[in-house]
Amino acid sequence: MKLQLALDGELQSSLAVLHATATYVGIAEIGTLLIYREGVQAVRELRTVFPQMTLLADLKIMDAGDEEASIAFDAGADLVTVLGVTNDATVRGVVAAAQRAGKQIMVDMMQVTDPVARGRDLLNLGCDYLCIHTAHDMQRAGHSPLDLLAHLRHELPNALLAVAGGISLNTIDAIAAYQPAVIVVGSAITCATDPAGTARALHERMNRPVLH
Amino acid sequence: MKLQLALDGELQSSLAVLHATATYVGIAEIGTLLIYREGVQAVRELRTVFPQMTLLADLKIMDAGDEEASIAFDAGADLVTVLGVTNDATVRGVVAAAQRAGKQIMVDMMQVTDPVARGRDLLNLGCDYLCIHTAHDMQRAGHSPLDLLAHLRHELPNALLAVAGGISLNTIDAIAAYQPAVIVVGSAITCATDPAGTARALHERMNRPVLH
Repeated sequence: MKLQLALDGELQSSLAVLHATATYVGIAEIGTLLIYREGVQAVRELRTVFPQMTLLADLKIMDAGDEEASIAFDAGADLVTVLGVTNDATVRGVVAAAQRAGKQIMVDMMQVTDPVARGRDLLNLGCDYLCIHTAHDMQRAGHSPLDLLAHLRHELPNALLAVAGGISLNTIDAIAAYQPAVIVVGSAITCATDPAGTARALHERMNRPVLH
Repeated sequence: MKLQLALDGELQSSLAVLHATATYVGIAEIGTLLIYREGVQAVRELRTVFPQMTLLADLKIMDAGDEEASIAFDAGADLVTVLGVTNDATVRGVVAAAQRAGKQIMVDMMQVTDPVARGRDLLNLGCDYLCIHTAHDMQRAGHSPLDLLAHLRHELPNALLAVAGGISLNTIDAIAAYQPAVIVVGSAITCATDPAGTARALHERMNRPVLH
């Protein structure tokens, strides 16, 4: 199980948080807000400073799949995100770009009507991870990704699942119990008074031996 | 009827095309590809060079509506785009940011299942324009925005509609006949051997007196 750290703050503070937490981070995410602020220059900067880190560019691609994904891969990203609600032609474009570059794709499943059927299609199209994502704007209304995680885990037992949306030390155990491949944490680390200690604690809780 | 010029190339070539065509351009769009490459620095640059131009940042917002829209408005954009498929909380966030800044919102209706019902909801939530958009990746399969434009024009007669997706001198008359508020043209101008002549011809065809 990998801890994905979502970086959405300013570039300099994001670099500082990643410096402090890198030991525990499996994937560093250049968040959509950071992409909007800096463009893929942010990916280039992280690639330079952290040459060995797995980097994900959270583009949330909706169209022009090949062209948009290539911009991120060319800048040094190892993974890009595509929206599960987009059309298949766009997904195929992202897959083509990923295959050419030898990189990977995570699908953001936000607003997908039938996540099991669509998830199966997306994996067949060549996507690598399905990310169950409770939108930032939906977390305020008390939504959580846990029910959908349980459902997808049951229906697609072999899929590589990621989970995102307001995850913290309060919820990590319930999430980790379903053994997703990736758990995405953002503000619970980046806004913590002790980001390194929080990342370490999350990492430990994700990788505890399972008791039977 | 306004001509919106979608700029998706490199920043310098985009500035050059806009210089050549600005007389005919009602809205200059900083396209998603350009945002990914440069971030909202591209918006700032166009704002500096074209202080009077109406600028649209094609963010295709899917989450964190208030935060993401604010990044574009703060950089000088007059309009941002939000995806019609997103959740209402995100749309409300974009509306809040637009109202604070005195700016406007265009909804990209790609992949919306029931465009009339959803379109009505989005206008009620406070969005300004509904953009009927045939995805770049769908144009190759021969799709066009014309049927949906006719349908929405009939069902939502008072809505401000925009139309996008592969529009050129070959299709402008059929589109303009439905009197959308905005017609979006990209590569037909930016990749033309004579961008200024093409923009002028499109502008003339959009603003011909209607014969009865």
